[in-house]
Amino acid sequence: MSFIHKPSLYKPEHVVSESEMLAEIKKKYCNDPSLQKILKMVKNCGILKRHIIRPLNDSLAHKKFTDKSTLYQQQLVTIAEVVVSKALETAHLQPVDIDLIIDVSCSGFMMPSMSSYLINRMGFRHDVKKMPVAQLGCSAGASALLKAHDYIQAYPFHNVLIVAIELNSLCYQPTDHDVEAAICSALFGDGGAACVVNQSQGKHGLHILDNMTYTLPNSEHYIKYDVKDTGFHFRLDKEVMHSVEHLLSGVEGVFKKYIPELSMLDFIFSHTGGKSIMDAIINYTSVDEKRIKHSRASFRELGNVSSVSVLDVIRRGLTDFSAKKEHSQSNDVPIGAIFGIGPDVTIDALVAYWGTHSSLHLGHD
Amino acid sequence: MSFIHKPSLYKPEHVVSESEMLAEIKKKYCNDPSLQKILKMVKNCGILKRHIIRPLNDSLAHKKFTDKSTLYQQQLVTIAEVVVSKALETAHLQPVDIDLIIDVSCSGFMMPSMSSYLINRMGFRHDVKKMPVAQLGCSAGASALLKAHDYIQAYPFHNVLIVAIELNSLCYQPTDHDVEAAICSALFGDGGAACVVNQSQGKHGLHILDNMTYTLPNSEHYIKYDVKDTGFHFRLDKEVMHSVEHLLSGVEGVFKKYIPELSMLDFIFSHTGGKSIMDAIINYTSVDEKRIKHSRASFRELGNVSSVSVLDVIRRGLTDFSAKKEHSQSNDVPIGAIFGIGPDVTIDALVAYWGTHSSLHLGHD
Repeated sequence: MSFIHKPSLYKPEHVVSESEMLAEIKKKYCNDPSLQKILKMVKNCGILKRHIIRPLNDSLAHKKFTDKSTLYQQQLVTIAEVVVSKALETAHLQPVDIDLIIDVSCSGFMMPSMSSYLINRMGFRHDVKKMPVAQLGCSAGASALLKAHDYIQAYPFHNVLIVAIELNSLCYQPTDHDVEAAICSALFGDGGAACVVNQSQGKHGLHILDNMTYTLPNSEHYIKYDVKDTGFHFRLDKEVMHSVEHLLSGVEGVFKKYIPELSMLDFIFSHTGGKSIMDAIINYTSVDEKRIKHSRASFRELGNVSSVSVLDVIRRGLTDFSAKKEHSQSNDVPIGAIFGIGPDVTIDALVAYWGTHSSLHLGHD
Repeated sequence: MSFIHKPSLYKPEHVVSESEMLAEIKKKYCNDPSLQKILKMVKNCGILKRHIIRPLNDSLAHKKFTDKSTLYQQQLVTIAEVVVSKALETAHLQPVDIDLIIDVSCSGFMMPSMSSYLINRMGFRHDVKKMPVAQLGCSAGASALLKAHDYIQAYPFHNVLIVAIELNSLCYQPTDHDVEAAICSALFGDGGAACVVNQSQGKHGLHILDNMTYTLPNSEHYIKYDVKDTGFHFRLDKEVMHSVEHLLSGVEGVFKKYIPELSMLDFIFSHTGGKSIMDAIINYTSVDEKRIKHSRASFRELGNVSSVSVLDVIRRGLTDFSAKKEHSQSNDVPIGAIFGIGPDVTIDALVAYWGTHSSLHLGHD
């Protein structure tokens, strides 16, 4: 088993409110027959605000890929230092204690990846292993937890640092006018998060029990980038809206090793995706709406921050768990799910529980 | 321990000879005061030919990033099918037997990554795990072996598939005229390779004993991309030429757990890099030139194929080992090194040996 220390979060200073977003859409799509449909869809999302790294006007301007890449690299490294410092402090660790850095970001591209810059700036060991992940999109946060868990099974005394930074506003494409582009630009926010994962022994908190990945057949086009001179153009097939139940049925087996029914999940820390994604999770699992409340809150306050979102959801969940002794509905200890959903469509699913290492005896450690 | 099945190799049909390359350089740099210096450096490389996915004239034309990205995706998936089929056949496995796909490529960017396309085209299981790696450049081939080894320690009965495809000719930038750009365009080739890594038990062949990564301090700028409207612009600091001995001294410790001196290495399967990189390895380790002969041969016949090169070197080494019973100079069984060198500068180093699982008893399995 492995233990997730409370993630840190960085929210960029510039804020876009729902009303500002709606006003911008009215302006851009004023002559478009889809305007009312788009406005309705955006309102239906229920995102109250999002944080972005530049003022709104600047974010909406048509910047060259060259300029966006420069900004991406500068901001990524700056934000990473902030969230990593906080995450290490929470885990009571120093940079030299980290054995593997999993750094995750899909909203730009740089080589070398941010972990290389962090090594020199923050004093990580020069024999720290590096696992940069750029191509797993929104599921990369949960996938990083999955990869950390797998690594800890091999090296139980090692410490894994996960850093996720997404600057989705740099992927805004002013010349894309279709409905999907409007939804995307109204959905995504910027931000960063980091956390440490290490062995469970003797710790009280959130433990990973097991994990599983499931890729929906023939879904490569559901969520993808077109990579062009102008940067990354996010493409979304509306079929993605109907994929959640298939994805959940694909990973149901790993949960049934621990609980008879998905409805017995005590918490769901899911990547936020969009309102319909979270609704579909509730429908499929038949859990009470309150079990997914931290995903709802994160989405409302930050929008979809790709790989960062699931870490923010866990952060909120852990604050809540720590504040009041959470009681399980039907399990000895609260058993829950961590979900990441992203291209192609893929779900990364983790079985987690809240308690002490010794509070669950399932013979899996 | 883990076992490396013989890698497959794909060489694109178009060939650029050394003389064709020199003629092109003379044409492009005809008025450049560095012409003679560039010609001398290119000749000194000793690359006899390279394989590229398009005819030379087409490769040298100024294509838009949009067009290059489309071609990258098409070719990547097509080549991946070829090398993966061969690698599975060698390991006597079917796609359904694979538990983790590590797919590696840094010469373009696509999301989702090639593994997603392979799942549907080739019939991999839908619960196969995916680890796409785009940001480790030339060291990614060795890094994938390192990651496969770590994974096998956690899941000893799993099968890991590694796929590396590099289309470096798509990163050629006709408008970059500096000396480094000339060297890069004369150095890199296209190609693909794949192999299976799984547990060692009972197998005769190449086993991974241990691994280590080392990042040189303050070297983020040694090998990097500038990401622009025109695609990836490879940047190389000449300091990289003097980095090899520092990198090797950084990983020397992991070898000294098994052999008293690096000079006792029976084989070196290294990423090819360039002539000076291989020379520096020989100088630092004091091994006989013949121990690195497969890297020399790969470089001569293919050029530097980034992450693919180390897999081609291993392929050549295994053919050699199988053909004649290779004898160790001073170890009970031949112990050697697998090296990958890439941004930032990083070395991924693996301790390997040739023999049966039971021929080495070091208490590490």
